[in-house]
Amino acid sequence: MKVLITTVPFSEKNKLPLELLDGAEAEYVINPLNKKLTESELAEMVTDFDVIIAGTEPITDFVMEKATKLKMISRVGIGLDSVDLIAAEKRGIKVSYTPDAPAPAVAELTIGLLITLLRSVQLSNIEMHAGEWKRYFGKRIADSTIGIIGLGRIGTRILNRLVVFGTPRLLVNDLSPDPALDRSFKLEWVDKNTIYKESDIISLHVPLTKLTKNMISKEQLEMMKPNAAIINTSRGGIINELDLYNAMKNGHLSGAAIDVFEQEPYSGLLAEIDRCLLTAHMGSMSEDCRTRMEVEATEEAVRFINNLPLESEVPQEEYSVQREGL
Amino acid sequence: MKVLITTVPFSEKNKLPLELLDGAEAEYVINPLNKKLTESELAEMVTDFDVIIAGTEPITDFVMEKATKLKMISRVGIGLDSVDLIAAEKRGIKVSYTPDAPAPAVAELTIGLLITLLRSVQLSNIEMHAGEWKRYFGKRIADSTIGIIGLGRIGTRILNRLVVFGTPRLLVNDLSPDPALDRSFKLEWVDKNTIYKESDIISLHVPLTKLTKNMISKEQLEMMKPNAAIINTSRGGIINELDLYNAMKNGHLSGAAIDVFEQEPYSGLLAEIDRCLLTAHMGSMSEDCRTRMEVEATEEAVRFINNLPLESEVPQEEYSVQREGL
Repeated sequence: MKVLITTVPFSEKNKLPLELLDGAEAEYVINPLNKKLTESELAEMVTDFDVIIAGTEPITDFVMEKATKLKMISRVGIGLDSVDLIAAEKRGIKVSYTPDAPAPAVAELTIGLLITLLRSVQLSNIEMHAGEWKRYFGKRIADSTIGIIGLGRIGTRILNRLVVFGTPRLLVNDLSPDPALDRSFKLEWVDKNTIYKESDIISLHVPLTKLTKNMISKEQLEMMKPNAAIINTSRGGIINELDLYNAMKNGHLSGAAIDVFEQEPYSGLLAEIDRCLLTAHMGSMSEDCRTRMEVEATEEAVRFINNLPLESEVPQEEYSVQREGL
Repeated sequence: MKVLITTVPFSEKNKLPLELLDGAEAEYVINPLNKKLTESELAEMVTDFDVIIAGTEPITDFVMEKATKLKMISRVGIGLDSVDLIAAEKRGIKVSYTPDAPAPAVAELTIGLLITLLRSVQLSNIEMHAGEWKRYFGKRIADSTIGIIGLGRIGTRILNRLVVFGTPRLLVNDLSPDPALDRSFKLEWVDKNTIYKESDIISLHVPLTKLTKNMISKEQLEMMKPNAAIINTSRGGIINELDLYNAMKNGHLSGAAIDVFEQEPYSGLLAEIDRCLLTAHMGSMSEDCRTRMEVEATEEAVRFINNLPLESEVPQEEYSVQREGL
């Protein structure tokens, strides 16, 4: 079996993933372009491979059409917006993922970004590096209204970590509200517009689907308080980047922290905005979580190669989301 | 009574401090230079005043010599390195402070800086603003060895907030170790050199005294692991800035977060180092904590004006620290 590893870096901090592939006597190639592949680059590269250990590059119907030997996709991570599940199903291509591994790292980074934005650290840092001294007032978490859209694996972990900082007003929204959370946290379940209007800081923890694509555009940004801030560590495309740029360019919002982009690597207008904190899709990039993601995805690929039962196939709900645009 | 308010901004987010002074029929002037005063600026400005509501500007023997009417100094904050307590005592000038008010804001900012450094957020942000995309590996708190020097009001609050992120290895040092902390936290009480050598990240929460001045200089920085990071939200002068610059310029350390400086406003060499996060002494600058500090310091000044017993005079230990260089 031939394995194409598209996600980079891979097995850099921990050699176990490559050792697992060696142990399975798999022939493997690590993405020679050493960057996130485009659809056409992947289509050209993938023709001869049985398995992809995949990042977030687009694995579309077109790509699968070229990948005539492809039998299995093992996603290093949780997001499935990059994989056309219906096209895979049609061809009998199995798809697995690692839904739990990234959550602790993403949640922790998000807390860091949240404190950073509440205190304008990113702006002061840029100013200090330019020789300007300006002291910004900020807010503590306990004194803030925090809006969280999406209370899945990452959103709930963020709740867990927030409580130790005191009791903020917590506005939350999820497609399937979980009443069990009310036993541990003082939550206000509200509609998204209430979150936009009333939050001091908003954090997004939803997948990219037809429903969430451009969920935060001009109209939603305009609802936000002039001094509010927004964090996106989920997926690019959920916040409309041009609308965010225009809003912030006009002085709206005290800050934003954007870790994920419609096109990655990102090189766009948001880089003009000093109070917009930008990071290079590093939510899951703690050594431990990244290793766990790579190991889990590789173990699943090795199970497939060895004809063993798969353990983390993408559940049917995810296919429904894509089929029905939920 | 005439009150000079040197700390700026003052009563900006909350008018109560000025209302309290009006209520006491005090005549007051807010620092017309709107910046941290130098010794000579203060000496010139203070001649006619009975009370100073003070920031961190140097209130030295020389200043008090000029301030012939001065009877009381009310510090907005906790640090006393800027006030010559012995010179004040000699002249019968009362000194009060607000030791508890800043702690929650400083502790929370420090957690934000800690996550930022562990994940190289500050570096990625600068690179992204320059159009470069590089994904950094980081560590989670739970996977790190964290060294804390100083377990007073702020250091212990940091412990409280760290535990929710998992269980890091915690190396701690304090002049007066408090065994009660061992009931709540798994701490390793070690000497400072062990902290320098073994920590992934070090945070300083000690006052500036003769003992802590230049505590972290070339020798201590060289003990640190090449990828370690350091945070100073306590006082400038505890880390030798030139030594830190030289070490980082040579590639040592993965990052630093410096909020306090020997001379403020700061304009120095550290601004050349992209992985050195710089902020403008904003540790206590959350609206709630800043207001609490200003209100408490003003209430104390008003007590003095009204000849009522003071409630937060600086304790004798602080005089001993300055007298005996402890």
